[in-house]
Amino acid sequence: MGEFELIARYFTRPTARAALGVGDDCALLQPAPGTQLAISSDMLVQGRHFFADADAFLLGHKALAVNLSDLAACGARPLAFTLALALPEADDAWLEPFSRGLFALADAHGCELIGGDTTQGPLNICITVFGEVPVVNGKSRALLRSGARAGDDVYVSGTLGDARLALEALRGTVALPAGVLAQACRRMEQPTPRVALGLALRGVATAAIDVSDGLLGDLGHILQASAVGATIDTSIAIGLIAACARPDWVNGIISSERQLDFVLAGGDDYELAFTAPASARQAVQAAAQQAQTPVTRIGKIEATSGLRLIDAQGRALTRSFASFDHFA
Amino acid sequence: MGEFELIARYFTRPTARAALGVGDDCALLQPAPGTQLAISSDMLVQGRHFFADADAFLLGHKALAVNLSDLAACGARPLAFTLALALPEADDAWLEPFSRGLFALADAHGCELIGGDTTQGPLNICITVFGEVPVVNGKSRALLRSGARAGDDVYVSGTLGDARLALEALRGTVALPAGVLAQACRRMEQPTPRVALGLALRGVATAAIDVSDGLLGDLGHILQASAVGATIDTSIAIGLIAACARPDWVNGIISSERQLDFVLAGGDDYELAFTAPASARQAVQAAAQQAQTPVTRIGKIEATSGLRLIDAQGRALTRSFASFDHFA
Repeated sequence: MGEFELIARYFTRPTARAALGVGDDCALLQPAPGTQLAISSDMLVQGRHFFADADAFLLGHKALAVNLSDLAACGARPLAFTLALALPEADDAWLEPFSRGLFALADAHGCELIGGDTTQGPLNICITVFGEVPVVNGKSRALLRSGARAGDDVYVSGTLGDARLALEALRGTVALPAGVLAQACRRMEQPTPRVALGLALRGVATAAIDVSDGLLGDLGHILQASAVGATIDTSIAIGLIAACARPDWVNGIISSERQLDFVLAGGDDYELAFTAPASARQAVQAAAQQAQTPVTRIGKIEATSGLRLIDAQGRALTRSFASFDHFA
Repeated sequence: MGEFELIARYFTRPTARAALGVGDDCALLQPAPGTQLAISSDMLVQGRHFFADADAFLLGHKALAVNLSDLAACGARPLAFTLALALPEADDAWLEPFSRGLFALADAHGCELIGGDTTQGPLNICITVFGEVPVVNGKSRALLRSGARAGDDVYVSGTLGDARLALEALRGTVALPAGVLAQACRRMEQPTPRVALGLALRGVATAAIDVSDGLLGDLGHILQASAVGATIDTSIAIGLIAACARPDWVNGIISSERQLDFVLAGGDDYELAFTAPASARQAVQAAAQQAQTPVTRIGKIEATSGLRLIDAQGRALTRSFASFDHFA
């Protein structure tokens, strides 16, 4: 199978939104009047973002999911994506499930493949995704990191720490019951981009980010961009590991200290962390309901810079947590 | 140096065209009214597209140049690009010249970096580039592969085969005088994207493509997309190796048969192959002059499918030439 046959067989489909899709030197995309394009790129590298034996279907899902998660954090509606792929070999047994997993998620979000590149090399998946954000009276409706204000509440969607729990189980540093392991692996391998929530939060949230490197690090980006600080209630946050919905599943297996590590600095969560004024609590709940995505209020934005962690009694935690950094 | 410091130090600059650049979950780009975006992605892999010891400055240039070449082939004006980078390590001695080479070319074309990703992994450079094409009366002015018609002339810009000549010299299959080698290496390492020519050819050329895998293979894409055939005069084409401007430099060193190989199927040329009606010959020359880019008329589009090669006497050549294919 040659390069062009590979593209024709697995990656060429009719496009509805793009003016021109796969098959020319460029794709052509014409945003609707009164909108702007939100653009994000994420590169997934074997051995770094996934194991060499990762299931190709799930990898197709995840490669697009982590990109859609960035659109979600901006409140952008997915439109299209490009796929650049370095492959050790043109292997049908890998390409068929990979493209199936990719397109299953793409179709679920009406996001079409419009171009890209294929080459030989160590497995590397680079997706650039395009979404649409309305511009109203000259002002973008995109959710940015820079809009948090003192007094805002801090929220997080879904659950946190599950992917890290799965990673640690696969690394052998924790032994999980089969049911918990399966649930955690699903969260690691097939994350759910919170696109509907991001859209519902437009005009409600003041700032948003997707949690990919760990909550504390990513929330730190909001604080820095907004020039504010925050206090997070760890007694609420610790309840966010999905498996903790059944405390008997994890208590006695993982110390509460480690559970908190996973929640606050686990990485690979692809949930949204966002802020909204206290006056918008009902609107946030309405957005969560509309998007069928649970959200939890975990803290407060403050004028004093820095990120403070407290326990149920309001006492400061002094432990430090490391955010994920590819080169640290 | 951590991931975010790396981005701040080498890849964060003010943006003039994008509504939002590096530093949020997404970049925001708002095409001008009456335009559409041309989008292309190219991934460069060490050992496949460049040698492990490739000069980082030249690599920064080339990684963007091959993408700008795709915009040129569509007649799109460069606007912006994203950069996804997998690096074995965060090495200042590599990043400093790489980013300098990248931005030197970007600045020359008014093309700004608006986002991307950095991760650890085998060296891999994936750029997605965005250009602007006018839409006039609902019709895109983009140059496509599909517009060639029987009777059109076939042209190619600049010179062909130089990069392949350099590659073969470095592989040791040909020994070149130092001056010729330097010239050929410059063409391989620092290709010139024909952006100005692409823009000047809007409304003049009927079809265009950038020559990256070899002239015959890439011209074949035009023929296929346009459902036509062509005849190419190899006695003209063979004169297109830059070094052949001084025949004494190559004659006696490389057989004419091999010279033709390099011209027709060398790869890595990043010139434009395009078609235009015979009535547009003056307009093509005016476009070439405006873009200060030489163009050579090398053949004719015909209704009969297939690509035919002839010599100076009009006799058919029956040799076959292989186009570059990453998985063939």
